[in-house]
Amino acid sequence: MKKHNFYAGPSILPQEAIDETIKALQNFEGTGLSLASVSHRSKEFDAVMNNAVSLFKELLDIPEGYSVLFLGGGASMQFAMIPFNFMKKKAMYVNTGTWANKAIKEAKMFGDVIEIKGDDFFSIPNGYDVPKDIDYLHITTNNTIYGTEYHEDLDVNVPLIADMSSDIFSRKVDISKYALIYGGAQKNLAPAGVTFVIIKDDVLGKVDHKIPTMLNYQTHIDKNSMFNTPPVIPIFTALQTLKWVKANGGVEGMNKRNNEKADTLYAEIDRNKLFKGTVAKEDRSIMNICFVMTDEYKDLETKFLEFATEKGMIGIKGHRSVGGFRASVYNALSIESINALVDVMKEFESNN
Amino acid sequence: MKKHNFYAGPSILPQEAIDETIKALQNFEGTGLSLASVSHRSKEFDAVMNNAVSLFKELLDIPEGYSVLFLGGGASMQFAMIPFNFMKKKAMYVNTGTWANKAIKEAKMFGDVIEIKGDDFFSIPNGYDVPKDIDYLHITTNNTIYGTEYHEDLDVNVPLIADMSSDIFSRKVDISKYALIYGGAQKNLAPAGVTFVIIKDDVLGKVDHKIPTMLNYQTHIDKNSMFNTPPVIPIFTALQTLKWVKANGGVEGMNKRNNEKADTLYAEIDRNKLFKGTVAKEDRSIMNICFVMTDEYKDLETKFLEFATEKGMIGIKGHRSVGGFRASVYNALSIESINALVDVMKEFESNN
Repeated sequence: MKKHNFYAGPSILPQEAIDETIKALQNFEGTGLSLASVSHRSKEFDAVMNNAVSLFKELLDIPEGYSVLFLGGGASMQFAMIPFNFMKKKAMYVNTGTWANKAIKEAKMFGDVIEIKGDDFFSIPNGYDVPKDIDYLHITTNNTIYGTEYHEDLDVNVPLIADMSSDIFSRKVDISKYALIYGGAQKNLAPAGVTFVIIKDDVLGKVDHKIPTMLNYQTHIDKNSMFNTPPVIPIFTALQTLKWVKANGGVEGMNKRNNEKADTLYAEIDRNKLFKGTVAKEDRSIMNICFVMTDEYKDLETKFLEFATEKGMIGIKGHRSVGGFRASVYNALSIESINALVDVMKEFESNN
Repeated sequence: MKKHNFYAGPSILPQEAIDETIKALQNFEGTGLSLASVSHRSKEFDAVMNNAVSLFKELLDIPEGYSVLFLGGGASMQFAMIPFNFMKKKAMYVNTGTWANKAIKEAKMFGDVIEIKGDDFFSIPNGYDVPKDIDYLHITTNNTIYGTEYHEDLDVNVPLIADMSSDIFSRKVDISKYALIYGGAQKNLAPAGVTFVIIKDDVLGKVDHKIPTMLNYQTHIDKNSMFNTPPVIPIFTALQTLKWVKANGGVEGMNKRNNEKADTLYAEIDRNKLFKGTVAKEDRSIMNICFVMTDEYKDLETKFLEFATEKGMIGIKGHRSVGGFRASVYNALSIESINALVDVMKEFESNN
């Protein structure tokens, strides 16, 4: 039976990207060696790194004056690297849930944090003032756990830093509005183990404290992400994913595809008497679609999860802090998987 | 033509480990999904992590009271994590070359460093006193660039910390003598992108300063290396490599095999009139074997490199700081590759 992969991350990747990775593990670029066993200083891997950076820039239409980095350590390491590199005294963080919360915790070790938070995490706070004297404003553009998402870039007069772990390459972004964008690659880009960073070159060098070498963005800019041994396999797979994005209409193509998928699934959630969405409609994510049973059918939750699992739906259990269900519908997920899930929801409705 | 992989790292891995990784990328543990696309919270990956930790402990005979971690970020990140977690005022570092040097640079941001250094890096310093009031002593057990290696564990009365990036699993180690052992996995264990840490549980919690969450070893001990998304593929491959080590006689089997390989190649270096070793005999590494042309034949260096490359020898160019040649002969390299290199050296000798 076909499995439909709705995992929140690590998660579905284009089959073409996986196939190319397998080929490279067998014989990398005709070297007769496996990608797993080739020096990162070889000319063959050097080309992979350069091509990944340049295709990343091309697809996101990144202007001159920005660098793209591929680092180890995960987005969680960025939560500390950001204040290490940018915090002089005070920063503002919009708290949209778990991940933003973790970022805030790290920032507080380095300075004052002005926290913007709504009554709950089912919508994105707005209508707040951004003081001019802060070192930066930090947002998380998509919250994988609550399923909220910014649909437009903010206009602010301070350096804007965004965690785009779970929605990079899903919609057009005006990069020029950001000082730094970062994210774990294990949603829309690559297997776990690599973190991308898009950084404006002239925003660094503003803090007085010492920064450990590996935590200093300048180190990695200067060495094109090769200061130390980079995570070779995930970077190779990232390049293959980027090629797939390009071949499928680029970021605009992804966005069209993602909107169609999200519209289809949200329509069923809104129509089906058993289910309801959890997020304010204007803030609904097109990447992580959260829903619960309506109060009347609450006791059918476990039964639906079992039914859907039997039908090949994988990873749709909601995060423990929200409960219910979550379908993560990243770029590589096809509309067929959405249709399969909708069919399962319809079938379960008519059975109950 | 068969390629012989002498890369210093990322480097040769057991073919069985690569084959199993490829199978898992096709279909991971019968899930119908690729290893690249499976949640690290799935029960299938959880088993991989647990098995990797327990086999790691078994093969190195790690006593009770130690944890084994698999982290992202590389050994270079450990250079900062160590003083973050252990430096109160003062530490001693033995400088055996490049990597130790980088570790020292980070430590100096956190406190005083007593540096032990010889006249050059072609032997390992000894005969120095270790003060009782230092927070720890840091050594690099194998220097990949100069080809020096400690062949015995030090006996000291302070916490001993060792970078074993390039010789872990190559010889028996008395773990109980160490507070912490760490290393990048991309030599004897896994593809680039994961770092192992063996840490004595009761050595932490001694410093007063704040430690960013991701840089605190306690974070990762408490969460069994799953505080954040770990590098899934390299950890899977590491488990396969460990299985191969076990099937091939464990660490003792590896050591026997490595000694045979090193003895064979050093014997040829010492015999052949064209070549000479660079390292004091008692400190010669069994992992990275460095040699240069004798003065009389110095001008044949480029010619030998070309000749050897034509014969399928890959990665034998010496590091720019030493010049000449370096054969990295990690666990997975077979005696056949050593014999092939020796044949090339002999053939080149008789041609010149």
